[in-house]
Amino acid sequence: MNAVDGKIALRSGNVDMTHGGGGRAMADLIRDLFRRHLHNPILDQGNDAALFSVPEGRLVMSTDGHVISPIFFPGGDIGSLAVHGTLNDVAMSGARPLYLTAGFILEEGYPLADLERIVMSMARAAKEAGVPVVTGDTKVVEKGKGDGVFITTTGLGVVPEGVHVSAERAAPGQAILLSGTIGDHGVAILSKRENLEFETEILSDSAALHGLVAEMVAAVPGIAVLRDPTRGGVAATLNEIARTANVGMILDEAAIPMKPDVSAACELLGLDPLYVANEGKLLALCAAEDADRLLEAMRGHPLGAEAAIIGTVTEDPANLVQMKTGFGGTRVVDWLAGEQLPRIC
Amino acid sequence: MNAVDGKIALRSGNVDMTHGGGGRAMADLIRDLFRRHLHNPILDQGNDAALFSVPEGRLVMSTDGHVISPIFFPGGDIGSLAVHGTLNDVAMSGARPLYLTAGFILEEGYPLADLERIVMSMARAAKEAGVPVVTGDTKVVEKGKGDGVFITTTGLGVVPEGVHVSAERAAPGQAILLSGTIGDHGVAILSKRENLEFETEILSDSAALHGLVAEMVAAVPGIAVLRDPTRGGVAATLNEIARTANVGMILDEAAIPMKPDVSAACELLGLDPLYVANEGKLLALCAAEDADRLLEAMRGHPLGAEAAIIGTVTEDPANLVQMKTGFGGTRVVDWLAGEQLPRIC
Repeated sequence: MNAVDGKIALRSGNVDMTHGGGGRAMADLIRDLFRRHLHNPILDQGNDAALFSVPEGRLVMSTDGHVISPIFFPGGDIGSLAVHGTLNDVAMSGARPLYLTAGFILEEGYPLADLERIVMSMARAAKEAGVPVVTGDTKVVEKGKGDGVFITTTGLGVVPEGVHVSAERAAPGQAILLSGTIGDHGVAILSKRENLEFETEILSDSAALHGLVAEMVAAVPGIAVLRDPTRGGVAATLNEIARTANVGMILDEAAIPMKPDVSAACELLGLDPLYVANEGKLLALCAAEDADRLLEAMRGHPLGAEAAIIGTVTEDPANLVQMKTGFGGTRVVDWLAGEQLPRIC
Repeated sequence: MNAVDGKIALRSGNVDMTHGGGGRAMADLIRDLFRRHLHNPILDQGNDAALFSVPEGRLVMSTDGHVISPIFFPGGDIGSLAVHGTLNDVAMSGARPLYLTAGFILEEGYPLADLERIVMSMARAAKEAGVPVVTGDTKVVEKGKGDGVFITTTGLGVVPEGVHVSAERAAPGQAILLSGTIGDHGVAILSKRENLEFETEILSDSAALHGLVAEMVAAVPGIAVLRDPTRGGVAATLNEIARTANVGMILDEAAIPMKPDVSAACELLGLDPLYVANEGKLLALCAAEDADRLLEAMRGHPLGAEAAIIGTVTEDPANLVQMKTGFGGTRVVDWLAGEQLPRIC
């Protein structure tokens, strides 16, 4: 038993099967750890479902499982990532996120002190984002049937009137904008896994983008497409949009922002940064005549300070994403090399 | 590679790490398996978030991870359970479920044919319930870091005007109703695990209860509490309500419906059926004068045909749940024996 005087022993205890059993041990874990750190008026209702009122209108809902390894990494951990990742998916509809839910799958034997660190980090990220975790669930699997902690978060958001953001709205002539440097998250994770040391530590860019999106939507309500280039990086994301909308794209390699450290690490590790995951960046497509205004709005926000126009949507029945390279040539940014890094989010 | 002529090889292939990589393999899996079976106009939008309109009013949101072992069991599988479990959590607010999301965590090496069976079962359950899966997510973990398939579902529902269902509304004098026999789900799972054979196969009661709830709410809009006795069974659920509302309860053992087979199996396995999980039953608390009307409404629905009034809410600062036994005595239905069966849902 991990109970000391009726309180669970956070400092010394470990997750055991009773924490998922529906009995008193689970109730104690929920009270002493999850509710204690994540508390808000809706979560505190204490029912199996969260109750709240919404205005009439268009909502979006998105869900994301998080299985990142290692659980703690430079610039974040699975708790903050689970908040940011799902908030960003909601924001990529142009929406304002309202609520989050969290489902935990814990492995027997995982240290409760580490779980508390994760939940505290989650609570901090949710608070900073202004979006509460309103309901949750905990399951426990036997040692060797999981990997510490998996967290699946779901977000609900409301779409402002007049905003219609969708991949199928990509159209020839539109500008392609990127909110900042690429590859930070993936390289941070891999450096940690491989125990690589660089002159300065490379941090994940994990961040909640809905504040940036709100500024962008206010400046250019007609934004056609928003997408966060997570798994598979900028390459996979743009290829997916191109296929969905039956268009092509041409990128300008020189315009794509990248940190020198990240660039050097990619070279060392044999990674193409276009395929490396980001967790705090977005791609935006808008009419060419709106591009400068959108860029200005992005640069006015801390998370878009290094934003750039990186390319143009083209007419192309083959849906190719191409890139003008530094040497004056053009190469195809293929979609096949999808999996560079497993469990990056 | 699990690709044959550009299609994933469902019959012979296995989940591999590329299916979670964000590249083409993942896109193919989503298209050929998830979207193919779960398709509906919202899911078919193909964005990372699902967009839909809701009427003004009160919504509920609930999330549930599913880690059941074995994945296929008599009366269902993890796919149908993941739909039913979350629909029921939403319905226990008195709400009408509108939408579901699903996050899959797959273990490398899991047979794609089995995954397809699960997704088909999920699609069938969602269709029967009239609630579409509108967005989802897939992650893959290395062999030995998961256990086949975990599914976290989140549900969104709308609460009818005038309905206020919440555990804290439990009050002395209220009647406690149960919608049918207890223990079916837990015993079905354990029989399968232990390879026990009974004269007739014991099936899980896994079912979506929102249709029953709609009838109940229509008959008695003033229902105080609804709760589905899943993990920890009727005992844990009633103890949780008693503690939340600071009341006691007295149950009548003879009134609690149970199948003879389930009763026999519990005796054989040394289980107290009050602690065994159900996945298609609910407990309801309502004013004593409404109890007969509520009972009649429940019995008029196929999933409530064997409903019964099983007890009364009492004033008790110790929040004890007690039971009048067949021998004329009274015993305390404690909350400590929470974990009887791991990974029951």
